[in-house]
Amino acid sequence: MHFTSEQRLDGDVLEREFTLGEIPGILWTPESASASAPAPLILIGLPPLGLRPMYPRVAGRARYYAARYGFAAATVELPGSGDRPRRPALEQARADLRRVMEAGEPVTDEIVDALVLPLVDEAVPEARALLDAALALPEVGGPAGYEGGIISIGVRMAAVEPRIAAAGLYAGSFVPRAVVEEARRVTVPLHVLLQWDDEANDRQASLDLFDAFGSREKTLHANMGGHTGVPQFELDAGARFFARHLK
Amino acid sequence: MHFTSEQRLDGDVLEREFTLGEIPGILWTPESASASAPAPLILIGLPPLGLRPMYPRVAGRARYYAARYGFAAATVELPGSGDRPRRPALEQARADLRRVMEAGEPVTDEIVDALVLPLVDEAVPEARALLDAALALPEVGGPAGYEGGIISIGVRMAAVEPRIAAAGLYAGSFVPRAVVEEARRVTVPLHVLLQWDDEANDRQASLDLFDAFGSREKTLHANMGGHTGVPQFELDAGARFFARHLK
Repeated sequence: MHFTSEQRLDGDVLEREFTLGEIPGILWTPESASASAPAPLILIGLPPLGLRPMYPRVAGRARYYAARYGFAAATVELPGSGDRPRRPALEQARADLRRVMEAGEPVTDEIVDALVLPLVDEAVPEARALLDAALALPEVGGPAGYEGGIISIGVRMAAVEPRIAAAGLYAGSFVPRAVVEEARRVTVPLHVLLQWDDEANDRQASLDLFDAFGSREKTLHANMGGHTGVPQFELDAGARFFARHLK
Repeated sequence: MHFTSEQRLDGDVLEREFTLGEIPGILWTPESASASAPAPLILIGLPPLGLRPMYPRVAGRARYYAARYGFAAATVELPGSGDRPRRPALEQARADLRRVMEAGEPVTDEIVDALVLPLVDEAVPEARALLDAALALPEVGGPAGYEGGIISIGVRMAAVEPRIAAAGLYAGSFVPRAVVEEARRVTVPLHVLLQWDDEANDRQASLDLFDAFGSREKTLHANMGGHTGVPQFELDAGARFFARHLK
């Protein structure tokens, strides 16, 4: 983790941009965090829109976590997003998805698999490398949480990464069948957001995925509105979920 | 509202038993509440088990609301419960329900209507009378919230009582079709709890009822476990919901 910039934000939060190998990312830590009082870490997953356009929203969440709850937070650019090299297969899968949706045709399992599985296969090891690097800092401690981003990446992180002690997931469409099977192996506490009228998401598929998770503690928060209409109060509800499990 | 006993509880909460006409009830108020700083009121609905056996749970909630959030809370015994006169028709409807459930037969709309509608018809005016009486106290103020109890009573209270500004409902079975129609007319913010593995409740019927509510702000919190297994952290989540809308 090579830091490339650093700034102090309101609320005594330190924001540092970094590169991890070739991958750009941002780390937020409470100024009060130290080797003797390390801040528990939340990994924030990004949507495929890229870190730069998502910065205001992600930084807002991270600053809230750090300033109000004393959490560290970190995020990295997804494969094929932002300034990272394009993934031709991913671009092709996105073009295929757009084409069938515009034509009103069904989105097949093949399209979903091509769209999501290679991204999960590449992003999960990168998220684990981010975990390695962030937890090596004296002011950052475990256990860690994972939240947001592409839900299939969150499912696999929760299923395979033993340092993830709790996960906050945001129901999204296009979860490959193989990932639903992985969800059955998840046992950590889960906090799942569902937008009831999500134009880009099948409600029943999201309820089925929630049902599939193997976790004994899992909570679904369903709210009205479309995909981008998650109510502001859910930020604090999510923070409280992590506070119950990461402290 | 005729007070019959009074005690001071930990957390600077005053608990007063009362009778409202012939109906027994309990009022909890923060000691700090006064005419110049009246406490917003939460009406707590009871299940048909009766006030006495439910006292520890209801009083625990009320004390939490009063001590942590400065709310007043009040509850009254349901018609036909506790020491109140039996309702032969209600007893008959409960016996019919037991019989068909033990026989594994379907619970018909007729049984549900006979079980629930007369109770709603009688309990809602009583809850409104409680609201009149409690809001007449100088230390208690509006707007008010309603929570818990038999969900059909909560639905009608939210639909017909303009002083109810927010409602916390607990998904339960046996909601008459007529009440589902009333749910479409509810417009106040709602906070709905659903136990995902509720042995006494049909999950899909509860999701359909949640969908039916006309409110623009409604949130569903679904948790694992059976009917009595609502996680402890939902008490605070519910209090925060009321704090957003009653202050």
